[in-house]
Amino acid sequence: MALRGLLRLGEVAIRVLDMAAAREHYGRRLGLHEVMQGEGGRVYYKAWDEHDHHCLVLREADSAGMDYFAFKVYDDATLTELAPKIEAFGLKVEHIAAGVYPYSGRRLQFRLPSGHLMQLYAHKEQIGNTLGTRNPGVMPDEGVIRGFRINRLDHCLLGGPNIDQNARLFREVFEFDLSERLIDVDSEASLALFLSCSTKPHDVAFVLQPEEARFHHVSFLLESTYDVIHAADLIGKYRIPVDVGPNRHGVTRGATIYFFDPSGNRNEVFSGGYVHYPDTPTLTWDTSELGAATFAQDNIPRESFLTVLT
Amino acid sequence: MALRGLLRLGEVAIRVLDMAAAREHYGRRLGLHEVMQGEGGRVYYKAWDEHDHHCLVLREADSAGMDYFAFKVYDDATLTELAPKIEAFGLKVEHIAAGVYPYSGRRLQFRLPSGHLMQLYAHKEQIGNTLGTRNPGVMPDEGVIRGFRINRLDHCLLGGPNIDQNARLFREVFEFDLSERLIDVDSEASLALFLSCSTKPHDVAFVLQPEEARFHHVSFLLESTYDVIHAADLIGKYRIPVDVGPNRHGVTRGATIYFFDPSGNRNEVFSGGYVHYPDTPTLTWDTSELGAATFAQDNIPRESFLTVLT
Amino acid sequence: MALRGLLRLGEVAIRVLDMAAAREHYGRRLGLHEVMQGEGGRVYYKAWDEHDHHCLVLREADSAGMDYFAFKVYDDATLTELAPKIEAFGLKVEHIAAGVYPYSGRRLQFRLPSGHLMQLYAHKEQIGNTLGTRNPGVMPDEGVIRGFRINRLDHCLLGGPNIDQNARLFREVFEFDLSERLIDVDSEASLALFLSCSTKPHDVAFVLQPEEARFHHVSFLLESTYDVIHAADLIGKYRIPVDVGPNRHGVTRGATIYFFDPSGNRNEVFSGGYVHYPDTPTLTWDTSELGAATFAQDNIPRESFLTVLT
Amino acid sequence: MALRGLLRLGEVAIRVLDMAAAREHYGRRLGLHEVMQGEGGRVYYKAWDEHDHHCLVLREADSAGMDYFAFKVYDDATLTELAPKIEAFGLKVEHIAAGVYPYSGRRLQFRLPSGHLMQLYAHKEQIGNTLGTRNPGVMPDEGVIRGFRINRLDHCLLGGPNIDQNARLFREVFEFDLSERLIDVDSEASLALFLSCSTKPHDVAFVLQPEEARFHHVSFLLESTYDVIHAADLIGKYRIPVDVGPNRHGVTRGATIYFFDPSGNRNEVFSGGYVHYPDTPTLTWDTSELGAATFAQDNIPRESFLTVLT
Repeated sequence: MALRGLLRLGEVAIRVLDMAAAREHYGRRLGLHEVMQGEGGRVYYKAWDEHDHHCLVLREADSAGMDYFAFKVYDDATLTELAPKIEAFGLKVEHIAAGVYPYSGRRLQFRLPSGHLMQLYAHKEQIGNTLGTRNPGVMPDEGVIRGFRINRLDHCLLGGPNIDQNARLFREVFEFDLSERLIDVDSEASLALFLSCSTKPHDVAFVLQPEEARFHHVSFLLESTYDVIHAADLIGKYRIPVDVGPNRHGVTRGATIYFFDPSGNRNEVFSGGYVHYPDTPTLTWDTSELGAATFAQDNIPRESFLTVLT
Repeated sequence: MALRGLLRLGEVAIRVLDMAAAREHYGRRLGLHEVMQGEGGRVYYKAWDEHDHHCLVLREADSAGMDYFAFKVYDDATLTELAPKIEAFGLKVEHIAAGVYPYSGRRLQFRLPSGHLMQLYAHKEQIGNTLGTRNPGVMPDEGVIRGFRINRLDHCLLGGPNIDQNARLFREVFEFDLSERLIDVDSEASLALFLSCSTKPHDVAFVLQPEEARFHHVSFLLESTYDVIHAADLIGKYRIPVDVGPNRHGVTRGATIYFFDPSGNRNEVFSGGYVHYPDTPTLTWDTSELGAATFAQDNIPRESFLTVLT
Repeated sequence: MALRGLLRLGEVAIRVLDMAAAREHYGRRLGLHEVMQGEGGRVYYKAWDEHDHHCLVLREADSAGMDYFAFKVYDDATLTELAPKIEAFGLKVEHIAAGVYPYSGRRLQFRLPSGHLMQLYAHKEQIGNTLGTRNPGVMPDEGVIRGFRINRLDHCLLGGPNIDQNARLFREVFEFDLSERLIDVDSEASLALFLSCSTKPHDVAFVLQPEEARFHHVSFLLESTYDVIHAADLIGKYRIPVDVGPNRHGVTRGATIYFFDPSGNRNEVFSGGYVHYPDTPTLTWDTSELGAATFAQDNIPRESFLTVLT
Repeated sequence: MALRGLLRLGEVAIRVLDMAAAREHYGRRLGLHEVMQGEGGRVYYKAWDEHDHHCLVLREADSAGMDYFAFKVYDDATLTELAPKIEAFGLKVEHIAAGVYPYSGRRLQFRLPSGHLMQLYAHKEQIGNTLGTRNPGVMPDEGVIRGFRINRLDHCLLGGPNIDQNARLFREVFEFDLSERLIDVDSEASLALFLSCSTKPHDVAFVLQPEEARFHHVSFLLESTYDVIHAADLIGKYRIPVDVGPNRHGVTRGATIYFFDPSGNRNEVFSGGYVHYPDTPTLTWDTSELGAATFAQDNIPRESFLTVLT
């Protein structure tokens, strides 16, 4: 009870075209902490206020996009309990031994109906947030919070077909809530589905796309709207390509900016949004209010926001 | 899985000495929404962004303090499941029929080892947050967010003996995490225990006091530190007695103000704090850092903060 | 010495196509305080933290745009001293008697080289900011700060030819500083000139336009970037047409939003910007950095921003 | 006209007991930029967004306190014009040649009726704010804004006798406005006088003290209340002694924190406050509202705030 099962998005693995440019972006610009270079030249990052070893893995490749995303679960017994349920749902589960992924316990891996590779794991080495656990204080040393002042990895939005099946998996097997959805005003078909396993408005979301396994964005949490403005100033300073400047989402009510890494992968930094609980009513947006659903401060739907994925 | 069992502090019932003054305070000053006057002259309030009918109940009485606090649980089956476990823990459970508490389903009631009366319920009528659930938008009409701009009831801090037993109940039976604790630096005895069933740093907390069933404060969530400053300005304008002005807690890292209602009950409004998960290490503060644990912007322990309860 | 001569932009008179819609916009949406309806159906507004009777005059007409703008000067002797200097500069000065403009002392009126009608006055009845002058406190009663939470009229940007001559008048006769300028990178011709008579980065600005007497925008001061975000939320809620959503100017460094009143007149609300002094170096932007000069959080020049005027 | 005569507080020279501790405080903690070590071991600082070479001079000495404060004036002719006026007021003016103070033009020096040594100068070498003056952008490189994120030196508050004579000098000779005053409610004697030569609520202030030439505090400007909270967090982290934690002044309406340097000199960082103009009515506070005048978020007068000076 309390918070159990899938806890949070714990790891996103992204393909980049040029690792040097990617490190400049994620390390020096965003200010994520590089914790390791690993096999195949992969580079691992954590956000300052996370305790686990890393949350972001970059791999140099010929195409941008996402290799996999992984949720941390409550404990190893949760993995044992979930594996047959996922199989029963109809997905083949691959069992990956502890240590195959660095600093990580064993993992379950399966491909979602949308084509995305998803993993679950219960253990990752904790290296802390630099404050310690005895009389920790509230402020890390200067330089620990840097760049965009990112606190945590928060969620990702993924594009593909069969998003209703994805949502059914998350709701029935993983017991997520459908916090919000965007539907076609005429057909009522699902266009985007937002799923929460916590008090956040979403922990993962899916947007309907014809192609499988598309990556819309990975999102990082900032502490305040003031930090969103600060990040926007840095985005401007470093001429980082902006998709949508400071605005507020209708969905989730978060204050947001979208921009691209040098490989064209979309990133988001955001702050705020309402507090979600399992008994919060599902919010439904339809395409008659597509602008308000996406960008509530001007109600303008952005073509690029809906069609550019990696 | 996901968020199950006890969801959140859903209701606090407070005794006030003068209902007119209390309504001035909670309604006109804090800006909570009065939704009903009920039996025995009780007055019921909700915060704007909550969906349930009410979160705060005031009752006029000869002494200030708290009558009971109540957590909402995931569903009725959770009540059925919990009742024998609470009994097995050693507490007598009273079953209260649906409707005895207005707009509420059945409740379990029991007295904690600290002397506090606690309730659990699975259902309360939802009246929404005024935005609706179809293309809701993000901003309620002007006047809905008012006064201190309170979003939600958040947590309460309660004083009494046997707080380790309280914590054992919450951890073993309710499966809360011990997010933080304050201990005596010499004896290592627990002085204050902070317990979370969500991603909040605490959902309830207990502070050691010799007398049973004491009320330290009820806390309401604001959206930003800017709103904390705004609330402080209103507190000053209306000459509301301040306990501790704008500061940041060491415990939870929240930006906070403490003040008193006209009956002497302590209130808090706060914003921020870190994101907690079940795998977040428990943070331990000891009395050698009592100032930093309580008020991290000046490290000064406040006598009144530790000793004035209702 | 100290602050003398022209003090500030004290009054802007705007033409609107539909007074009812304009009152909805400036009064109910922006939250300016309507203080009077006057001759010819004119409606007068003040911002809450101004002391003078009004700062904005609306007049219903067949075309949108600005009738005149007026600076308040230090005292009546300043008017006496300036009149011959303005004439010597080559502009015909019209003397308007006290009382012709309501609650106002005598005015000087003249047409700028850009075609705009400008006025100077030394006296306007003061009605205060509701706080009083004896132990005033810091917070007006609730409802006084409302809508977009506008503190003050701040500046206006006007379009027309001959802006270098305008600037020469303001610098040589009115002793303003040229705080910033935007020039063509090739010809070095002035495209926009920003002029300050205070510690603000600009008190008035001119943008080169082929047509005379064009109105680009009137700007109102907010207290914080948090209020800019709040205004953006209201703009979205009320579907007010947005020109440019939350962003930061390169010029002045202010955090800004541009939007339109129902007649198509552009409004700005903003917060922040650097502190200017007469010894602050003039900043020069050229058209190779037109995006950064205008909107520094994405470096994108907006066609509409440069070409849509009333 | 416009902004002329005395422009701003441009330099404060402070005595410290231990230069190493002082450099740790002003340089590493507050994040001011050390620009030079000079004669007699003096250390010079500037705030990042100032253009002049330095604004703060530290000198190691046996007692804490202020050596002198200096206003920058519009031009050299202003010095020539002011010297005889200051003499006519009754103060002996010492003429200090250019170059005696490093990077500085000639200075006038005189002792105020309150015993404080005041200087005026028209020239100081400008080294800029790192952004340059051609297409400067809005964000300096990371590391330029650091520590408490101080933008500028703002004002100082000085204690001594004869503050009404001080104010008469500033009003009659320097043409400052009396923006606010604190008086004894019975005798109406002046207890504190706040004087402005700009749109700031005060550029200098004097508080009645029996001893001459006492130093109450030097104040630095932050960009936002969010930065005030950030500074408070750092003050807590580094255990900097706090005089008064985050609060809002009644006088000026600024959001403020007071703390002490290692020598016991009081510092303030603040943000906000109303916009002052010469026609803004003088605000009067009396001792019946001493709490609200000083700290408006709790209306509590602080004994230490009124009596501890260096």
